[in-house]
Amino acid sequence: LPVVRDIGTLPQDNFGRPGLSHITVAGSLMHGLKEVEVWLQTFAPGTHTPIHRHSCEEVFVVLKGSGTLYLAPSSHSKYPGKPQEFSVFSNSTFHIPVNDVHQLWNTNEEEDLQVLVVVSRPPVKIFIYDEWLMPHTAAKLKFPYYWDEKWYQSTAKDEL
Amino acid sequence: LPVVRDIGTLPQDNFGRPGLSHITVAGSLMHGLKEVEVWLQTFAPGTHTPIHRHSCEEVFVVLKGSGTLYLAPSSHSKYPGKPQEFSVFSNSTFHIPVNDVHQLWNTNEEEDLQVLVVVSRPPVKIFIYDEWLMPHTAAKLKFPYYWDEKWYQSTAKDEL
Repeated sequence: LPVVRDIGTLPQDNFGRPGLSHITVAGSLMHGLKEVEVWLQTFAPGTHTPIHRHSCEEVFVVLKGSGTLYLAPSSHSKYPGKPQEFSVFSNSTFHIPVNDVHQLWNTNEEEDLQVLVVVSRPPVKIFIYDEWLMPHTAAKLKFPYYWDEKWYQSTAKDEL
Repeated sequence: LPVVRDIGTLPQDNFGRPGLSHITVAGSLMHGLKEVEVWLQTFAPGTHTPIHRHSCEEVFVVLKGSGTLYLAPSSHSKYPGKPQEFSVFSNSTFHIPVNDVHQLWNTNEEEDLQVLVVVSRPPVKIFIYDEWLMPHTAAKLKFPYYWDEKWYQSTAKDEL
């Protein structure tokens, strides 16, 4: 692996989600990192992440565009419930506390939303909710996550 | 603390190093993160980090400008020795393996070098070398690091 990588030449894919571009800038399975991982993601107008949670820290830096963060702070309820809404904008930052259920939308009808995303404890284990009233216990674990699948399989093979 | 913060309004300082601008975008002592920390740093032409090492992972994303990374891969020598040189440039990324001695220079005479820096295991504990032939055992620990000092003291007081 080259020490310095041109982000513009790294693999980029939408993993079946129209309007998404995901690049693993510095990854656990791809680049051997153990403690942090960095993604560059672009969301076309109207697109969004799933409603989800993960037991790692996550920091966002908004590089371009604007959107809305929906965040359901942890509670003793059996389901996330109605989330709080926060406007996010170019040159803003926010982080998601461990296990808080959240969703990021590009609610700007004209511009792409581009974010740099940092997560701890890679590779990420994501629990997905169909809606905000779905019980925490019913959220579905997706592991390896879509962008890790290919690398996870090749890592597993290497270990045979 | 607000959930979404405008990076343009966050405290910015050079901590006594002319030509440096450091902003803790998402921090351990400032914002309560436990596993990752994100900085935005700008280096004027000709300025640089100290020669240093730390036992955490560190990922750089170059947002603007260009420069040179000096990296002495870990070895069984008693000192870092002559480092390898790598050109870094806008929209490039690189990471520093745990405990590798390194230094980043803005070697571009005309443009600022701006980088987003991610570190694990905050707050960072940095060992500083006067030169590349200084023994590892003589490198000086600086903790808390300059941008953490003020916050470290207030945290310590809170615990009394």
